Amino acid sequence: MKLDAEWITGFVDGEGCFHVGINKHPEMSSGFQVLPELTVVQHERDVQVLHALKSHFGCGVVRTNHGDRMAYRVRNVDHLRKHIVPHFIKHPLHTRKRQDFIKFERILRKMEAGDHLTAEGIEDIRRIAAQMNRGQSR
Amino acid sequence: MKLDAEWITGFVDGEGCFHVGINKHPEMSSGFQVLPELTVVQHERDVQVLHALKSHFGCGVVRTNHGDRMAYRVRNVDHLRKHIVPHFIKHPLHTRKRQDFIKFERILRKMEAGDHLTAEGIEDIRRIAAQMNRGQSR
Repeated sequence: MKLDAEWITGFVDGEGCFHVGINKHPEMSSGFQVLPELTVVQHERDVQVLHALKSHFGCGVVRTNHGDRMAYRVRNVDHLRKHIVPHFIKHPLHTRKRQDFIKFERILRKMEAGDHLTAEGIEDIRRIAAQMNRGQSR
Repeated sequence: MKLDAEWITGFVDGEGCFHVGINKHPEMSSGFQVLPELTVVQHERDVQVLHALKSHFGCGVVRTNHGDRMAYRVRNVDHLRKHIVPHFIKHPLHTRKRQDFIKFERILRKMEAGDHLTAEGIEDIRRIAAQMNRGQSR
């Protein structure tokens, strides 16, 4: 299955989620680990669409999410920067997820600058991440 | 907001629903009314996307669905035939909703032929409609 770039943006506008997790991690110099990820969840009957996304972007994994749900997930920061971000800059989202993407991309840039390695940087990233995925019902 | 045709198909693959309702209706010669519809539901914060769909297709209405959910809905059979069906033939869906659309289009053709006005035709349409939206979780 070959996917059109605009189809992908439309599908992610519907089904995708840009999320940044911040977990305690004593081995990191800041005491925290920042985990940005793009996730697209589908019923297992449509797993072929998730594999087509993986094949289109050339990165990420398709795994069981929970129960009969499968997820396409990209967590590798380099892959997010090189493959995911350029797509959504060239083919912008139309729902409020566009605002999430803008914050997501901003956090990735801060990580590139090493901000996540300092306590002040983590606070800054946490503040931006807290404004994402608001009012999301799933 | 101007929407790309492939974006629309991707978004409908995620958020849309092709449905055919069959209701008792004593005034119809067959005793039943067949109600095909395309629905796209969104949180009210993204109502502008629903208006952009309406504007793109040049038909349908945007109304409250329930609570904080809005719906773009096309029920007029002529509009479905002239504006909705050609779009999804030219820009095919990639999820299992494609199978729903194929059945939906078949029922619209049967209605065009007047099948919904006879008891046998209604049985036939009911059989096709019963195979739609299977395993849908919402």
